[in-house]
Amino acid sequence: MNPYEHIQLQAYEANMQLPQLGLVLFTFGNVSAADRNKGVFAIKPSGVPYNELSPSKMVIVDFDGKVVEGKLRPSSDTLTHAVLYKHWENIGGIVHTHSTYATAWAQSLRDIPIYGTTHADHTTCDIPCAPPMDDEMIRGDYEYQTGFQIMQALEQRKLSYEEIEMILVGNHAPFTWGTTPQKAVYNSAVLESIAQMAYITESIKADALRLKDSLIKKHFERKHGPDSYYGQ
Amino acid sequence: MNPYEHIQLQAYEANMQLPQLGLVLFTFGNVSAADRNKGVFAIKPSGVPYNELSPSKMVIVDFDGKVVEGKLRPSSDTLTHAVLYKHWENIGGIVHTHSTYATAWAQSLRDIPIYGTTHADHTTCDIPCAPPMDDEMIRGDYEYQTGFQIMQALEQRKLSYEEIEMILVGNHAPFTWGTTPQKAVYNSAVLESIAQMAYITESIKADALRLKDSLIKKHFERKHGPDSYYGQ
Amino acid sequence: MNPYEHIQLQAYEANMQLPQLGLVLFTFGNVSAADRNKGVFAIKPSGVPYNELSPSKMVIVDFDGKVVEGKLRPSSDTLTHAVLYKHWENIGGIVHTHSTYATAWAQSLRDIPIYGTTHADHTTCDIPCAPPMDDEMIRGDYEYQTGFQIMQALEQRKLSYEEIEMILVGNHAPFTWGTTPQKAVYNSAVLESIAQMAYITESIKADALRLKDSLIKKHFERKHGPDSYYGQ
Amino acid sequence: MNPYEHIQLQAYEANMQLPQLGLVLFTFGNVSAADRNKGVFAIKPSGVPYNELSPSKMVIVDFDGKVVEGKLRPSSDTLTHAVLYKHWENIGGIVHTHSTYATAWAQSLRDIPIYGTTHADHTTCDIPCAPPMDDEMIRGDYEYQTGFQIMQALEQRKLSYEEIEMILVGNHAPFTWGTTPQKAVYNSAVLESIAQMAYITESIKADALRLKDSLIKKHFERKHGPDSYYGQ
Repeated sequence: MNPYEHIQLQAYEANMQLPQLGLVLFTFGNVSAADRNKGVFAIKPSGVPYNELSPSKMVIVDFDGKVVEGKLRPSSDTLTHAVLYKHWENIGGIVHTHSTYATAWAQSLRDIPIYGTTHADHTTCDIPCAPPMDDEMIRGDYEYQTGFQIMQALEQRKLSYEEIEMILVGNHAPFTWGTTPQKAVYNSAVLESIAQMAYITESIKADALRLKDSLIKKHFERKHGPDSYYGQ
Repeated sequence: MNPYEHIQLQAYEANMQLPQLGLVLFTFGNVSAADRNKGVFAIKPSGVPYNELSPSKMVIVDFDGKVVEGKLRPSSDTLTHAVLYKHWENIGGIVHTHSTYATAWAQSLRDIPIYGTTHADHTTCDIPCAPPMDDEMIRGDYEYQTGFQIMQALEQRKLSYEEIEMILVGNHAPFTWGTTPQKAVYNSAVLESIAQMAYITESIKADALRLKDSLIKKHFERKHGPDSYYGQ
Repeated sequence: MNPYEHIQLQAYEANMQLPQLGLVLFTFGNVSAADRNKGVFAIKPSGVPYNELSPSKMVIVDFDGKVVEGKLRPSSDTLTHAVLYKHWENIGGIVHTHSTYATAWAQSLRDIPIYGTTHADHTTCDIPCAPPMDDEMIRGDYEYQTGFQIMQALEQRKLSYEEIEMILVGNHAPFTWGTTPQKAVYNSAVLESIAQMAYITESIKADALRLKDSLIKKHFERKHGPDSYYGQ
Repeated sequence: MNPYEHIQLQAYEANMQLPQLGLVLFTFGNVSAADRNKGVFAIKPSGVPYNELSPSKMVIVDFDGKVVEGKLRPSSDTLTHAVLYKHWENIGGIVHTHSTYATAWAQSLRDIPIYGTTHADHTTCDIPCAPPMDDEMIRGDYEYQTGFQIMQALEQRKLSYEEIEMILVGNHAPFTWGTTPQKAVYNSAVLESIAQMAYITESIKADALRLKDSLIKKHFERKHGPDSYYGQ
């Protein structure tokens, strides 16, 4: 009996969605799936092509980043996942990609302004771009520090990880999360779409205006909170 | 005997075309199909993935937005569809998407200028962008008011819903319609193509000129009206 | 025995390539295939979806635009094809599409500058954009005049239809041709690629320079003329 | 017994990846695979469509560009490959494409700035754009000189072919290489992705900053050198 089979399967299936959704080239992405009771997550092995993955190849790691089970080396971004699972107790999945438009915004070091209801359906604020960390942190435990870089960017904007489930890491690329790995993958695809639309919007109108507050509130509440009426 | 089978099938098939035409991500779109004699329309249930849809899951709603039959909750945009069916007696189908380029124009709050014959083959005027509604209307019955927002934008431009079958709702996304659901889906794909071409046109030439009137008239009349000679 | 079977098959197969190459949406394109001995060409029927086409549905038309055989109405652009076949005795195929990037250049009323060797591999000059015709011609026999509009644009640039096999019709869209319908389809795909690259080039560098003459000459002569050494 | 079967198969398989990765239109690309012991390479025949290729059609050429075996004429870019194999003793594969975004940068005559970690994961410097060669060299043995044009551009930047495995040839298109043909194809796809992201980055922020040195160093060393920890 393999006690991690369920999260290995979840992580495998979620990873396989990334190329189907056009969010990764080669191996430039990874998804993890957490088991909160056991205090571990399953994550993609490092550098293994998607067509060679299988559930049993997913590596089991604890929330301090220590490998618990698995013959392969876990994703090089594993420590970032570990830090976020350790500090954010209600998330069950994390996704990292280098998807084209979201990565271009990360490279521009700009937050993605909230220009429309597609954005407001998912979050009420601009998508934050965490500034690059300082040189000392980069030389240190880089992936571990990336987790703190993400958390600090939310704190500085007074946002909780439950209010917004996506972020850009400056000069790098996006991370998204959610209560499940599937939700985190969904958020990655939504972020890429929002990033593309915002880029085109600014090309069409250089001084495009952010969405007004009443529309932000309305659209977000259609999908979230006690009075939501989207979905079944 | 199910008296709504024909419009459920029409709505189902038209909805399934949206992902095939690349017009929707996940569930971000909906099509409805009206039966004018019965005074009802069939519409996609809210938030159900396209690969889980079937004709019988289409919800039957009357022109006041009241559910007549169906176990699932109808699309959150149902009231907008209802208002348009109620006021525009010759339409048989409505489509709403968040297609990338049309949505970017909606986010820029600009009408799409008529730059070429691809556009003029379908309508003789710029594609209107309805301005965002005022805050009071947003707080009220939002989707219901969206229907009126659309109708007012046409009225202000002295356009009938039969002259132009597509519109942008400012900060939101496009709506299209037609005598049948298939025609409305066709209009959504055409709008997305026109929106992309207009965006590229302005990037190539910042001060691109609108099409001259003689060409607008010629191309529109090739496809529409008593002297049309396009098609069989 | 059907004496037009060979050109109907050629026209059918060439038409079917357009959606495969991503050059058309719905029915927004057409290919014709000429039989020079018989003085006729086979062309796509007007407004018939690609998945309903068959070789026998291709309409046979003479070089004055008169239907010789076929139950369906020929493409609305038939007279443009007829004029070009009549005046350019060495072409065997013509293609018209509304492909995205080439159409955007046509809408901008700009020639496509020769920025690189991809372009020079196919022609030594900028891709001409024929200016919109005057209002009187538009009101007259529009598609017939479009043929003359194309020929005049080449004449004004002192280009022969054998030196360049592609053109933009201002505010409208591209036409391409060649010794065979297959070659004309190839030219349409090449034009779309050149148009996209030129658009991106100008976005990357607003004052990008045209290719220098020595490189234009070298690349063109690699593929064309007595000293060519490309292909088998 | 065919002594070149292994490199013919390698070259065939690598060539077939180009259309699958969306890097070529028609025949606008070629891959070669070298056998260092025999001092030869297998390369795509000139102008043959990808769906008509087979391993046995790959032409065997020595490092001076002389055909050793094969009935078909080798790629018109063969001499460029030969020069690079002759001078760079540790490469096993070379790829040339006209991929859209990389070619647009080559047409703009600009190096691709290093804007993010996707870029830094693969090389620590901007992607060089070799300036167009002078007219005398173009009139001479053009493809042969292209090899030297590439080598000189690296030398001027004090870069070795092992530090960077990709380059833009000004006004032309990209070349990439690697220890194997598979690695060279991988580099072509990576370059196209980097080129697209850099283009979008500058559109989002006109004065985007290059990545800081500490991040360049960190990301490159994650994947390369004695302390790398990416992959298995």
